[in-house]
Amino acid sequence: MGDDVARPAEGRQPAAPVSRGQIARRVRILRAASELGAREGLASVQMHDVAKEAGVAIATLYRYFPSKPYLFMAVLEWHIEQYLGGHESGQGNGRKNLAPADADAAAEVAELLITLSVKLLDSPLLASAVALSSFTEYATAVPARIDIVDSALGQAILRLLGADEASETDRSRARLLIYGWWGLFVAMLTEEISTEEAETNMRLAARLLLTP
Amino acid sequence: MGDDVARPAEGRQPAAPVSRGQIARRVRILRAASELGAREGLASVQMHDVAKEAGVAIATLYRYFPSKPYLFMAVLEWHIEQYLGGHESGQGNGRKNLAPADADAAAEVAELLITLSVKLLDSPLLASAVALSSFTEYATAVPARIDIVDSALGQAILRLLGADEASETDRSRARLLIYGWWGLFVAMLTEEISTEEAETNMRLAARLLLTP
Repeated sequence: MGDDVARPAEGRQPAAPVSRGQIARRVRILRAASELGAREGLASVQMHDVAKEAGVAIATLYRYFPSKPYLFMAVLEWHIEQYLGGHESGQGNGRKNLAPADADAAAEVAELLITLSVKLLDSPLLASAVALSSFTEYATAVPARIDIVDSALGQAILRLLGADEASETDRSRARLLIYGWWGLFVAMLTEEISTEEAETNMRLAARLLLTP
Repeated sequence: MGDDVARPAEGRQPAAPVSRGQIARRVRILRAASELGAREGLASVQMHDVAKEAGVAIATLYRYFPSKPYLFMAVLEWHIEQYLGGHESGQGNGRKNLAPADADAAAEVAELLITLSVKLLDSPLLASAVALSSFTEYATAVPARIDIVDSALGQAILRLLGADEASETDRSRARLLIYGWWGLFVAMLTEEISTEEAETNMRLAARLLLTP
């Protein structure tokens, strides 16, 4: 992993895909990384194998994803976005308008996060890869690092709470919930706590953090 | 870092120091790692430099700390224990008996965690080293990994809440608060959020998670 970590050009923004061809290429890369990560784990995946499996040039791969941790962080976000897309459209409508701090909304957020963990843990090697990457990213200089509340997951939580115009406190509640979810996810991954404990903890977190 | 990560003998427990000489040696190692980490950052610190600086044989170092991430996780715990020792004895008494879920107790826990972050962030390179290590540890097979609630920090929180006989819910509240603190600490470290925001968030977390 060492070489890849050292590779990103600091301060350079990764290319954002704009055309349909570029978007398709980006998805091919994410799918290839996902499959290789699930099969081999983070340490064994080589950037050139990802490029080969996705059918793109190595330079193209690095243009979209400047490092291996960056790539696997994008894999995590991609899985979360896919899951959220399915989850929300499964309910007929991408936007709900529950009253803020409604107990049912808090419970619904808890179930969303529990199901997301279960889905990610379906593939333990990939889950470890994305968990380790997302943290490695924190410790390296990454361009375009965004506030977690502005991620797909943060926005989904705010939407479930009906907070179209989220106040600073709404954002803080969502942030703390994501940190709680993340801690529980990693603790489950490492078998520090059981799945049942993690689920009980997640429901408690949503109730305490999201209802007044 | 690669070699060190691969090094721990899985399933083997690191040696626990028992004699005064062993305890002194362990502290010398932790201090040396701490100084080298603060000066050079995690990636540059070599286990043999730590052994040299601490005046111990490399085999001794590995007997106590089977890997570099393990060593830096112990450095984090050592700093936290030192801080908590000073904090509690500064109040005259290591044990308080506030009513559980008392608003003042929640506020006091928030201040404890804020001050702990500030203290750890005094040395940003060391803070990055311990943050990165503690996460790397999660992803590698580490013997003797304990539930975070049973760490010095978890126990200090439960004591501040007066929960001598902590219920499962008390333990969950403490766990979620530690995850929140940790997420805020990393977000501060990476300048994703400002120190002021992190402090506001920490107070909110303690209020929501610790009071009914």
